[in-house]
Amino acid sequence: MNFLKVTNIDEIEELILKKIPSLQGKKEICKLEDSLNRVLYENLAADLNVPEFNRSTVDGYAIKFKESLGASQGIPAFFTIKGEVLVGEHTSKKLESGEAIYVPAGAMIPEGADSMIMIEFCEILEDTLLVHKPVSSFENIMLLGEDLRAGDVILKKGAVITPENVGVLASLGIYELPVFKKFRFSIISTGDEIIGEDEEYKIGKIRDINAYTLSLAIQKFGIVAEKKIVKDNFETILEEVKKSTENSDIVLISGGSSAGNYDYTSKVISVLDGGEVFVHGISIKPGKPTIIGKSNEKLIFGLPGHPISSIVVFNIIVKKLIESLHFCGDSDDYYYGVLSHNLHSTPGRTTYQMIAKTIENNEIVINPIFGKSGMTTLMTKSNGYIILGNNVEGLEKGSRVKVYRF
Amino acid sequence: MNFLKVTNIDEIEELILKKIPSLQGKKEICKLEDSLNRVLYENLAADLNVPEFNRSTVDGYAIKFKESLGASQGIPAFFTIKGEVLVGEHTSKKLESGEAIYVPAGAMIPEGADSMIMIEFCEILEDTLLVHKPVSSFENIMLLGEDLRAGDVILKKGAVITPENVGVLASLGIYELPVFKKFRFSIISTGDEIIGEDEEYKIGKIRDINAYTLSLAIQKFGIVAEKKIVKDNFETILEEVKKSTENSDIVLISGGSSAGNYDYTSKVISVLDGGEVFVHGISIKPGKPTIIGKSNEKLIFGLPGHPISSIVVFNIIVKKLIESLHFCGDSDDYYYGVLSHNLHSTPGRTTYQMIAKTIENNEIVINPIFGKSGMTTLMTKSNGYIILGNNVEGLEKGSRVKVYRF
Repeated sequence: MNFLKVTNIDEIEELILKKIPSLQGKKEICKLEDSLNRVLYENLAADLNVPEFNRSTVDGYAIKFKESLGASQGIPAFFTIKGEVLVGEHTSKKLESGEAIYVPAGAMIPEGADSMIMIEFCEILEDTLLVHKPVSSFENIMLLGEDLRAGDVILKKGAVITPENVGVLASLGIYELPVFKKFRFSIISTGDEIIGEDEEYKIGKIRDINAYTLSLAIQKFGIVAEKKIVKDNFETILEEVKKSTENSDIVLISGGSSAGNYDYTSKVISVLDGGEVFVHGISIKPGKPTIIGKSNEKLIFGLPGHPISSIVVFNIIVKKLIESLHFCGDSDDYYYGVLSHNLHSTPGRTTYQMIAKTIENNEIVINPIFGKSGMTTLMTKSNGYIILGNNVEGLEKGSRVKVYRF
Repeated sequence: MNFLKVTNIDEIEELILKKIPSLQGKKEICKLEDSLNRVLYENLAADLNVPEFNRSTVDGYAIKFKESLGASQGIPAFFTIKGEVLVGEHTSKKLESGEAIYVPAGAMIPEGADSMIMIEFCEILEDTLLVHKPVSSFENIMLLGEDLRAGDVILKKGAVITPENVGVLASLGIYELPVFKKFRFSIISTGDEIIGEDEEYKIGKIRDINAYTLSLAIQKFGIVAEKKIVKDNFETILEEVKKSTENSDIVLISGGSSAGNYDYTSKVISVLDGGEVFVHGISIKPGKPTIIGKSNEKLIFGLPGHPISSIVVFNIIVKKLIESLHFCGDSDDYYYGVLSHNLHSTPGRTTYQMIAKTIENNEIVINPIFGKSGMTTLMTKSNGYIILGNNVEGLEKGSRVKVYRF
């Protein structure tokens, strides 16, 4: 039983990187259309101006703005229509005094024009344009480079690609992105009582839960993990973990990390090639019996068998580690609310309290969810958690708390 | 120009369903491991108790709790060890007075036992167990049905499947789920100036943006959309839209919905089989020149060409429509913050103001982002929006506002 020497949650990440420096993110190239939720490996700068020409933002006529001054519904300004610019056309037309040229939205403003009057405020009499409203200088025109200047950083290293920021990249013709290479994962559920989808259920057995929750949590990163169930047998677990370290960067072993009779995870890691267990328990609740080790350059987690502990440890350690390795900025996965009940915490341990959110009088109310460890329904009832630090004795009803989403 | 008759944003959804009743969600079956982010089609109830037997939550010894009363470090209680229960075993052992049976976490509590003492508080002398701490009734035991009772609703219709709630389903042996069938999407970008990834760029042209942003926004639903770029030619657009309605439930046409010279979307919809345009502009800003129509039972959107308008309309109409058709509950995609500046709005139009979030003194501060319509960089600078309703004249600096994520 090594659990007397628990590691502080705040030291975990540094420790892992000290043990496996090669975990630092690597680069790969990803197509723009496949880039949803990928993380940018380096700053991206614009290599040209956007727009590359003075562009109309409306359908209407290009004119010289001074010649519209004083125009009104009653007393229009008159212009001679001198053709049109087509969208997509690189025009060489020049606008002279007293002239108007039709320019649709998105098309290039001809030289000499300094304003666009929207078609809604115009009237056409053969070749003559009547303008019923004055426009101001550069109204309805987006100037060359106004959106982006060549050299501007568009997106920073660590930016998570969203539908919104893909637009800028497409406008610049950036169709391939340097992104952080995804980690490959394996999940191994251990336990004699654990049965899989294809095994017959008998009373006394427990259907595998953790391989499913962990697998879906990993899918959130767009990664499909290998998953396996193995019985509590040293040789079988050893063989399976060995295989997994060959095909994966990170191996999650679920169950077998508490201090009971049939716990092989720690022993298995120790005998692997380059094997070492360097975390024997963490000062958190739930999730204390977590072990972390490695086999050569591969990271191995022994997660608690309890479903909630297992997913909490995944979220607060594995997920955060990856986000940190990939320099993700604010992942926007928290909000604030008001606590509905007094909360006590365990001194010396960081407590992760499951909560459910309700809305009362336009205020987000945070309701702690309690239940026995191992209750699977706690997970469906809660939709996030709050953190009570090492030194926090508790929180009073009505406190403003920061809530993390799963 | 039909834009005089704009439709109120609040009426859009009802109108669409009146015109195309068959859009109502349909059911399909999905494997549990592929169910991330899928939406449940009907309530799911437990068909058995969880756990199905009294289960130990710790590694330790099953005893009768009364026989541990008064036990302490100095004066232990003594028990005779009568073997063990294996995990996964359906035990028929019976515990008699003065006996203890080893039961690891997850294993079945033998008849006659009513409490578990953790191994940490025990000492073993050959066949005798010394217990150094009293336990209370049913301590460290999860009772039959305590987590879930047969018949309990586990997840409701409209629940979005998360890693967390998959655990409960797996524990019940529910490996296939009734979920809402995904809608199939096509995206058509129109415009003579629009060029695609494989076309050579020339000044005057604009690289396609909307097909990328829309495509990634749809990927958030786990749907890969067909995308095409077509020139502003009536016959070409007609042919492409026709093809798309055959393969898709929802067709998004980007560009071509303002009132200029080359706008064919509305005309194209009108001549399609069973074609009808029933929304000719919406009372929102940005996004006014949006048209909505149908061809038989297929829904067709003519989205504004401006990238920001296009993605805003997608988020506030198309995305919300799908969530609503699939009965999604609180999608948890909003939070509250404090406004950094006074904001004005346009009376009679619902304004969607882009914002960027910052944190100051533990408070989320909401900074409005301004820029010309059509600026692509607005999208990378903002990470959500606030809504100023029809009747809101503006909001004062310091107001508490509800922020929607993209």
